[in-house]
Amino acid sequence: MKDLFLTEPEVYSLLSSYGISVPAYSLFKRGELPSWNTFPAVVKVVSKRVIHKSSAGGVLFVSSREELKRAVSELEQKFPEAEEFIVEEKLSGIEAFVGVKRDPSFLHVVGAGTGGIFVELFKDVVFIPLKASKEETLEQIKKTKLYKLIEGFRNYRGNLELFLDFIEKLKILLTEHPEIYELDLNPTFITESYIVPADGRALLKEPEKRREFKPLPDNLFRPKSVAVIGASKNPKKVGYALVRNLERFKGKVFPVNPKYEKVLGFKCYPSVKEVPEPVDCALIAVPAEVVPSVLKECGEKGVNLAVVISAGFKEAGREELERELVEVAKKYGIRVLGPNTLGFMVPPLGLNASFSTTLPPEGEISFLSQSGALITAVVDAAASEDIGFSEVISLGNQADIEITECFDLAVRSSDTKVILSYVEGLELGFELLDFVGRKPAVFIKAGKSEGGKRAAASHTGSLAGNYKVFKDAVECRGGIVVDSLEEAFDCCRFLTAYGRLRGKKLLIVTNAGGPGTLSADYATTFGLELISVDPVLEELSEVLPPNWSRINPVDLIGDATSDRYRAAFEILEKLQWDVCLVIVTPQSMTDVPEIAHEVVKLAERTKRAVVGCFMGGSSVSKGVEILKREGIPVYPDPYRAVNSIRRGVWSVQSSSEERREKV
Amino acid sequence: MKDLFLTEPEVYSLLSSYGISVPAYSLFKRGELPSWNTFPAVVKVVSKRVIHKSSAGGVLFVSSREELKRAVSELEQKFPEAEEFIVEEKLSGIEAFVGVKRDPSFLHVVGAGTGGIFVELFKDVVFIPLKASKEETLEQIKKTKLYKLIEGFRNYRGNLELFLDFIEKLKILLTEHPEIYELDLNPTFITESYIVPADGRALLKEPEKRREFKPLPDNLFRPKSVAVIGASKNPKKVGYALVRNLERFKGKVFPVNPKYEKVLGFKCYPSVKEVPEPVDCALIAVPAEVVPSVLKECGEKGVNLAVVISAGFKEAGREELERELVEVAKKYGIRVLGPNTLGFMVPPLGLNASFSTTLPPEGEISFLSQSGALITAVVDAAASEDIGFSEVISLGNQADIEITECFDLAVRSSDTKVILSYVEGLELGFELLDFVGRKPAVFIKAGKSEGGKRAAASHTGSLAGNYKVFKDAVECRGGIVVDSLEEAFDCCRFLTAYGRLRGKKLLIVTNAGGPGTLSADYATTFGLELISVDPVLEELSEVLPPNWSRINPVDLIGDATSDRYRAAFEILEKLQWDVCLVIVTPQSMTDVPEIAHEVVKLAERTKRAVVGCFMGGSSVSKGVEILKREGIPVYPDPYRAVNSIRRGVWSVQSSSEERREKV
Repeated sequence: MKDLFLTEPEVYSLLSSYGISVPAYSLFKRGELPSWNTFPAVVKVVSKRVIHKSSAGGVLFVSSREELKRAVSELEQKFPEAEEFIVEEKLSGIEAFVGVKRDPSFLHVVGAGTGGIFVELFKDVVFIPLKASKEETLEQIKKTKLYKLIEGFRNYRGNLELFLDFIEKLKILLTEHPEIYELDLNPTFITESYIVPADGRALLKEPEKRREFKPLPDNLFRPKSVAVIGASKNPKKVGYALVRNLERFKGKVFPVNPKYEKVLGFKCYPSVKEVPEPVDCALIAVPAEVVPSVLKECGEKGVNLAVVISAGFKEAGREELERELVEVAKKYGIRVLGPNTLGFMVPPLGLNASFSTTLPPEGEISFLSQSGALITAVVDAAASEDIGFSEVISLGNQADIEITECFDLAVRSSDTKVILSYVEGLELGFELLDFVGRKPAVFIKAGKSEGGKRAAASHTGSLAGNYKVFKDAVECRGGIVVDSLEEAFDCCRFLTAYGRLRGKKLLIVTNAGGPGTLSADYATTFGLELISVDPVLEELSEVLPPNWSRINPVDLIGDATSDRYRAAFEILEKLQWDVCLVIVTPQSMTDVPEIAHEVVKLAERTKRAVVGCFMGGSSVSKGVEILKREGIPVYPDPYRAVNSIRRGVWSVQSSSEERREKV
Repeated sequence: MKDLFLTEPEVYSLLSSYGISVPAYSLFKRGELPSWNTFPAVVKVVSKRVIHKSSAGGVLFVSSREELKRAVSELEQKFPEAEEFIVEEKLSGIEAFVGVKRDPSFLHVVGAGTGGIFVELFKDVVFIPLKASKEETLEQIKKTKLYKLIEGFRNYRGNLELFLDFIEKLKILLTEHPEIYELDLNPTFITESYIVPADGRALLKEPEKRREFKPLPDNLFRPKSVAVIGASKNPKKVGYALVRNLERFKGKVFPVNPKYEKVLGFKCYPSVKEVPEPVDCALIAVPAEVVPSVLKECGEKGVNLAVVISAGFKEAGREELERELVEVAKKYGIRVLGPNTLGFMVPPLGLNASFSTTLPPEGEISFLSQSGALITAVVDAAASEDIGFSEVISLGNQADIEITECFDLAVRSSDTKVILSYVEGLELGFELLDFVGRKPAVFIKAGKSEGGKRAAASHTGSLAGNYKVFKDAVECRGGIVVDSLEEAFDCCRFLTAYGRLRGKKLLIVTNAGGPGTLSADYATTFGLELISVDPVLEELSEVLPPNWSRINPVDLIGDATSDRYRAAFEILEKLQWDVCLVIVTPQSMTDVPEIAHEVVKLAERTKRAVVGCFMGGSSVSKGVEILKREGIPVYPDPYRAVNSIRRGVWSVQSSSEERREKV
């Protein structure tokens, strides 16, 4: 299929067939003059060659039959090659931007936001993936100023229901027309009684070939036995590090190398086929050229998972070798991680199937990373930061296993509570959206700055960078996209403890006014709701000193001890809050560890989310330890605490159970 | 003076007298019809009672003499109480928002940004204080989309020079008219040939009484002798803690309490007047009621600085007592810190004139805080975070000494390189702007969420929250306003090492692709410039492995050792960069401490800004220590590293020396 451009009447006709209203219009040929009598009206040139009609001077507004005649003759002169023209009713109302882009990874996304000439200036546009429910679409739209216009601003008001229906119809149209590459409906006018695009152009392109999503078997990353092909006795070689790292593994280890009888105390086999027991997983650290043949042996042996540590494939320009590897894997039904991967780790099994020297603590976070180096840093920091993992997977070149497939597996795994992904490139974005939101998921996406560099042909194109589409699509479905690693781990801490919260009612208790005020600022900025403490004002006043704050943040005053915290907690727990932030600064009377114990008890009694912000150094470290041990998220800075709470609150209010049924 | 409202022609006449263009207009009385013949035109009602003319239906557009007649009669009927009407030329061009607000702290600020009906929707407005230079005004304007429109966007283009002149004229007008409380010039039209407001209204109000700025003497916070009035032997009392904290002070200590002969080994005096030597500073910890009489004695003794630790003044509703204290201070010329202050600390003198148990490490940061509790937390964290201070001052109630006066003093002090301020309320904002920008200054401002709550009568009012005015005014003059404490200290780390940078050219060197890409994303988002490494591509290729990145970020590949870092540094230092970010992740070959030494050497050789981002835990801790010891800023997360660099770069390109002469 060749690239094909659809003119305005062609687009209108396509839209109409899906029940989308279009303006009243009349198409006419050069030399003709239509019997048009509704004014004001718009006359435009219709030509596959004139894509940007407005800037080419191909759009004229007319308010009488006289002006119409003059305009037609002007257009005929200006566009000598054009054979057709169109006249249509002039619409008014809220000017919205609506544009569709087909992303190679996420497929069609519908961009919507405030339109008009400033659309590229203010970039008030969100992207909605085809898989978004109507409710999710609404939540996305709410992020734009267009939503405020529709709800009523100055003289503007639109019909939200009509707008949502319009998007739903557009989604059906797009699902049935995968050949649409770009579709611009700019502007689209919204009033209280209608939603009608006042222009339309589309570009059709043959859909790209996409890789297939192949679900991974449940226990793929939970092997009972691991072979190391290319095992070595030389401590400088990866084949040595791999075997050494397996010493703590609770399953069986089979080094493979024809040169050795034993490696690090394990019996060594000349080939994987000669291992006398089943091999679930093979780590391959042999020269790249040899990998396909080794993989073939693995296939014959019945290995489920081959982890190709070896580099020297696509990343080194040797795409042919990588294709060969994929062919062998396919033939034998082996799933391949890598090549060029650090490997993977399963701390609860004591399994370090990687060449990273450290195995991080056990926990409930699945960390999927498209950067191996990032894993080494994170794993190293994890111990001191008390962050634990159910698994850590380095994706490498993704010749076979793609990050989305691991994500699906992590959603299914009962070991994992939170999924953290570091994403550079994603091929199965469309499929990922089926799984995002089923479990708390945090994403760090690299390549934010790429979008801006691309030259873009259409409005939508210039607004829909790779990063923007990723962020909008994933967030729309309930994923959490953060800016930094620190933020990611802060979020994971909260999500591991409490999952995602339905409500956003926040209570702040503090022994210091300043950090309390800062926290309230953050909370308000982020859209959290500070509950009123009025219902317990008198009760609190009985146990607190006369100069207590009398509002939320509840300032217990600098000389508050654990007794005062407890007394306040016991009253405040009667109120309806979803999350309580407890701030502690080390002042002269502050008994930090005892306060920490009160915080733990508050969480236990209420079964609600309780978060600590213990500010300072050595004076608060014991309190911090107590909270960490008891699984209460604790942060050193109010910003990080409140930001983690905010990220933990569902913006989409539909329950994840509902969503699960839909997908 | 009573509040006074100025009508459109009155505002036009005021503007004209300052050389600001206004539309051609004709004012006429009820029953009259002006001999107006320029169309299209606008007819409006003129009445002190009709403030929001447009929404009241008091603005009509006309395109002929006929329509003008009809419009006048319509307005006459609609506003039976109105005596005057105005007809004026209809302008076109870029619609800008221009509004003035008189802030109680910062006095007049001029708001400017994109106008039109969406002004309150997009809030694309910056505030410019009267003290801003033309250059600083330009830098502020550059933050708005209006700037892009003026520079040329679609069919729009304006005259930047005219716009800046307009703001300058407005500044002179405002300086000479302190009675202006609000001035709305909305919209103001900008084209390539003119800038003309198309409307005008003003509200005049008697200027508020403001406290006086009284410069502090140079060595006020560097006393040679300190008395503690209310010294105690009871370890539970503040008067005990104060004396105990002075044990390490390099000057003289005089406890004062008629009850004791000695306190903690120091000779104790019955009254401050009986101390046989000069007393530079007195710490007062006696019951609030007694403070004025104690202060009187200090006055008679010739004390320069009284630090009133005692609480129970304004914050407890006893304003009268606080006024009394101020009166006594004034009479004797004593400067008073507090009341209700934690005190102050000067680590280089070993002076802890506060009841905080810890004295932080010495350094070059002056920390001025309107929250005492925040100081206890920061000081506690400082030791483990390796952050040092030249002084720490708790402002308390600010009955006498205001934070701006301390800021001025810190600017003058040779001990201080960076000023960090935690601000809740600021009375001398106007004066603060004289000092901001003379030294690197970081601000945390609480109360961000207040602005939104205020009901606002005018456009400008609703856009000019307390926080927004503070941030814009301070940033405009070169201050750095950050969001959180963590960010503040990250910035201080950078600023202490390098001050503020003129240039924004960034080089990134890394041994891990992922963190490199993330850093490049941040840098691009923040507007830093990633320099090209093309000029040394060949040279680098000779010392780096074949698969090195060949672009900036320079990825040395995971197996890079200190030798490879050094080799790369030696080539890369030939390039023109202002700051180099070195990222290290702990991979199997990474010799972290040796790399840290190379980073130090790079900074020493080039005398340029070098920043480390050492990611991980125990594997990188030795490297981190080395950098900290050598004064190289080092961060655990690329976001924090790049953000600190960005904050350290001057957005205003005028040199601080230039500014110093101006103010």
